[in-house]
Amino acid sequence: MLSLIAAGPAGRQALNRLDRAVSGRIGLDQGKLLAPIPRPRKNVFCVGWNYLEHFEEGERIRASGQPLPERPVFFSKAVTAVIGPYDPIPYDPNVTTMLDWEAELAVVIGKAGKNIPEEHAMAHVFGYTVINDVSARDLQRAHGGQWHKGKSLDGTCPMGPAIVTADALDPNGLRVVTRVNGVIKQDSNTRHLYFKIPRLIAELSWGMTLEPGDVISTGTPAGVGFARTPPQFLQPGDLLETEIEGIGVLRNRVVA
Amino acid sequence: MLSLIAAGPAGRQALNRLDRAVSGRIGLDQGKLLAPIPRPRKNVFCVGWNYLEHFEEGERIRASGQPLPERPVFFSKAVTAVIGPYDPIPYDPNVTTMLDWEAELAVVIGKAGKNIPEEHAMAHVFGYTVINDVSARDLQRAHGGQWHKGKSLDGTCPMGPAIVTADALDPNGLRVVTRVNGVIKQDSNTRHLYFKIPRLIAELSWGMTLEPGDVISTGTPAGVGFARTPPQFLQPGDLLETEIEGIGVLRNRVVA
Repeated sequence: MLSLIAAGPAGRQALNRLDRAVSGRIGLDQGKLLAPIPRPRKNVFCVGWNYLEHFEEGERIRASGQPLPERPVFFSKAVTAVIGPYDPIPYDPNVTTMLDWEAELAVVIGKAGKNIPEEHAMAHVFGYTVINDVSARDLQRAHGGQWHKGKSLDGTCPMGPAIVTADALDPNGLRVVTRVNGVIKQDSNTRHLYFKIPRLIAELSWGMTLEPGDVISTGTPAGVGFARTPPQFLQPGDLLETEIEGIGVLRNRVVA
Repeated sequence: MLSLIAAGPAGRQALNRLDRAVSGRIGLDQGKLLAPIPRPRKNVFCVGWNYLEHFEEGERIRASGQPLPERPVFFSKAVTAVIGPYDPIPYDPNVTTMLDWEAELAVVIGKAGKNIPEEHAMAHVFGYTVINDVSARDLQRAHGGQWHKGKSLDGTCPMGPAIVTADALDPNGLRVVTRVNGVIKQDSNTRHLYFKIPRLIAELSWGMTLEPGDVISTGTPAGVGFARTPPQFLQPGDLLETEIEGIGVLRNRVVA
């Protein structure tokens, strides 16, 4: 997939030729679907506090008095966190008992760029996929306020089930849903993104080269577990479903 | 280098055989020395506030009242930030005018592991190198308190000049020095690391797999620019030298 993305339009054309040439298909149920980019070439870029209601639900807990930042909040998830769309999420109570869900639309970069102006940003997008930025809330807060460790546990970045190419999807009005054991926990729409995709790409590429295959997870809406009364966290056996309209559904079982 | 590290003891033996078999050497001045790991397979792990005096000099500026964290502060630098030991550091005043220095001992992981206990941690170390965790102080603070963006600009992770293997170096008493245009700015010793290397490896690998070739930069001592009165930042033309006893010196010119 990384080679295909890096090949640009020539890669897409080769894929289309291959698609026409192939007879006989393998059903999705005849194989194991991996993450569309099982091993990104760098950490997954993530955006924090990018839906107003999610910032506000967290601020009720934090009570920090901190205003919504004027620039996007960026952090990263280690590449080793990535798992497939139907893979289990490991649960180890010695590591954390506060695993929380964060359904997110993720942007896959197609064309390299640095200092990309907002008005050209969408030309750098290859496509879109679904990520659940599963978060260990205790670890997220325990390391001096930097979120990296609490966001990077093995198996806490389910991705997939596919990349929908940019020509086939308008990312601006997609329903975003999390279900745990069939119960809806998050239900919002990408139209509520506080910093829109062009702004995220522009800010991130400011002085820093974005590359084909880079993944930018755009932030999660309200409805996460830690902000509930009482707080809720993923438990062994739970089925976490993460759905974005027009892309698909991740189904990940929490397994002790 | 990544293949050599991943090959473990067999790789070291092959290298030793090669070393004995080769006649005729190329002088270091006859080639361009790259970073020992020019393209890490994931972001560089970094540790914040890991020398007490550096935490205190920063706290005088932040005045946050925040105590030193009970666990290490982890964040990451994008892989695209890595440059060689003598490469220029790009200066773009449209991106930042607050580039600051942070001399750091970096640990290169040799053997994969997860939930590594402190007492076994040193067996996972391949060797040591020098990093300057060059930081854009304005961007570090502008993104909602998460440091990732301000630490990830292109060219802000000079690395090298070599990896000294773990069998050849005791990392616990090494002088750490930064000079700017020949003037000493930081001058400390790795014996003052607040969280020692075994603790860093144990904490980082807690629930998260470390892999051969992973780089962990262990934090910087006091003497950074932003905490000075008045604050000092790198300017175009400045020569930044970063030295760790027993490893070597990075010499990076700041170039507009």
